[in-house]
Amino acid sequence: AVRGLLLDVSGVLYDSGGDGGVPIAGSVEAVRRIKASGLKLRFCTNETQATREKFVKKLQGMGFDISVAEVTAPAPAACRMLKERGLRPHLLVHDDLVPEFAEIDKANPNCVVIGDAAENFTYANLNEAFRVLIGMEKPVLLSLGRGRYYKETDGLKLDVGAYMKALEYACDVQAEVVGKPAKKFFESALAEMGVPPHQAIMIGDDIVNDVGGAQRCGMRALQVRTGKYRPCDENHPNVKPDAYVNNLAEAVDIILHQM
Amino acid sequence: AVRGLLLDVSGVLYDSGGDGGVPIAGSVEAVRRIKASGLKLRFCTNETQATREKFVKKLQGMGFDISVAEVTAPAPAACRMLKERGLRPHLLVHDDLVPEFAEIDKANPNCVVIGDAAENFTYANLNEAFRVLIGMEKPVLLSLGRGRYYKETDGLKLDVGAYMKALEYACDVQAEVVGKPAKKFFESALAEMGVPPHQAIMIGDDIVNDVGGAQRCGMRALQVRTGKYRPCDENHPNVKPDAYVNNLAEAVDIILHQM
Repeated sequence: AVRGLLLDVSGVLYDSGGDGGVPIAGSVEAVRRIKASGLKLRFCTNETQATREKFVKKLQGMGFDISVAEVTAPAPAACRMLKERGLRPHLLVHDDLVPEFAEIDKANPNCVVIGDAAENFTYANLNEAFRVLIGMEKPVLLSLGRGRYYKETDGLKLDVGAYMKALEYACDVQAEVVGKPAKKFFESALAEMGVPPHQAIMIGDDIVNDVGGAQRCGMRALQVRTGKYRPCDENHPNVKPDAYVNNLAEAVDIILHQM
Repeated sequence: AVRGLLLDVSGVLYDSGGDGGVPIAGSVEAVRRIKASGLKLRFCTNETQATREKFVKKLQGMGFDISVAEVTAPAPAACRMLKERGLRPHLLVHDDLVPEFAEIDKANPNCVVIGDAAENFTYANLNEAFRVLIGMEKPVLLSLGRGRYYKETDGLKLDVGAYMKALEYACDVQAEVVGKPAKKFFESALAEMGVPPHQAIMIGDDIVNDVGGAQRCGMRALQVRTGKYRPCDENHPNVKPDAYVNNLAEAVDIILHQM
């Protein structure tokens, strides 16, 4: 029996771009139907270009029934990890994400946290993050996701994973990924929802980070044919979703029909 | 018997930094002694921040007896490869290197050439190079070297290898390295000198790119304790130089004494 759903946001609820985004047809209504059904629901995103507050406000503006408390995102997960391990980060992140780290001690850094810094990925900022890392006896690099690239209205952009690889290579270190597809990240989303993996379904557009990651946690996972979905995903050598659906609305139709 | 020497330049002849550099003590005289000895000599560098003309002028200004015809560098090697394979590059390189590609057709690019672009490693330029690559049916990425980082007077800088890794990951492609430690690059330096590998010695400060690369070609290789040399290099898991020397002057002393 299904008791809870985890939804990826960008590419499932809406298509992002430039200053805002556009809801994907049927998704606003699909979220309402999930909530009316009594299923538990969490939004599980790798978004790191804005605080959850700002991100949620954008989605509410598009008509989505969503609140900050329902969102699992990498920055708060990173903050918990930093506190647990006594880590003081040097941040290479988007300006709009910085407030998520307001309560974290950042003096005399002993790790680097990298997110999708976008325009902040300058030559100077990359060299600075590198120098902080290489100056440590044992460099610690936390990466908010490991995406390769994403699409915005003005074209494809390199995602945080590419810059993570640059720093990994330069410092001969392996980054710890906070966010999808990390097992710990899915597990915290499930814990917040109070549903065990075998009673939860992940719905996402990313074959590796959404589908593969969720399945490795013991969840079922559906891939939508919206967002960054590409037909060649259906021939992925390692990952096979439990089902394909055209979009979130169709996924909700099927799930509610089987309950 | 030794018949020819390949010399790395930065860190062996001089220490680079900011606008110029400083000759390493004894190196100017050491180059003169090699030339007087009758040994063949070639300068084998991964320098890609300037044309060979400009680079050689800088070294002459420090007192070195060196000419453009004696320098093996990645950009001309890349130009030969581009012509042979009918490749039209999109360039992500230092402004001062662009003239090396003056005679290469760059219209409608079918590959990307990346060098140590320094300040040209902007977010916009990296996204542009990425879009050119990902738009190809089979992306071709040539990288002028694969260094991790280097030191300048104002601190450590990420080298071309880090940015190469970022593009490799984003496009799921393997770059072809032109320059040290590529076997083909050492072989062309040997051919230009007219000396077979077993009669040649490489002298460099980089344990992997100079010493390891040259040894894989069948040459002997000495590591100098100048430039980017670090004591921990002497415990390198995979590479062991044929000998360590304090600097180029000492290397030349030993080699000429044994002739």
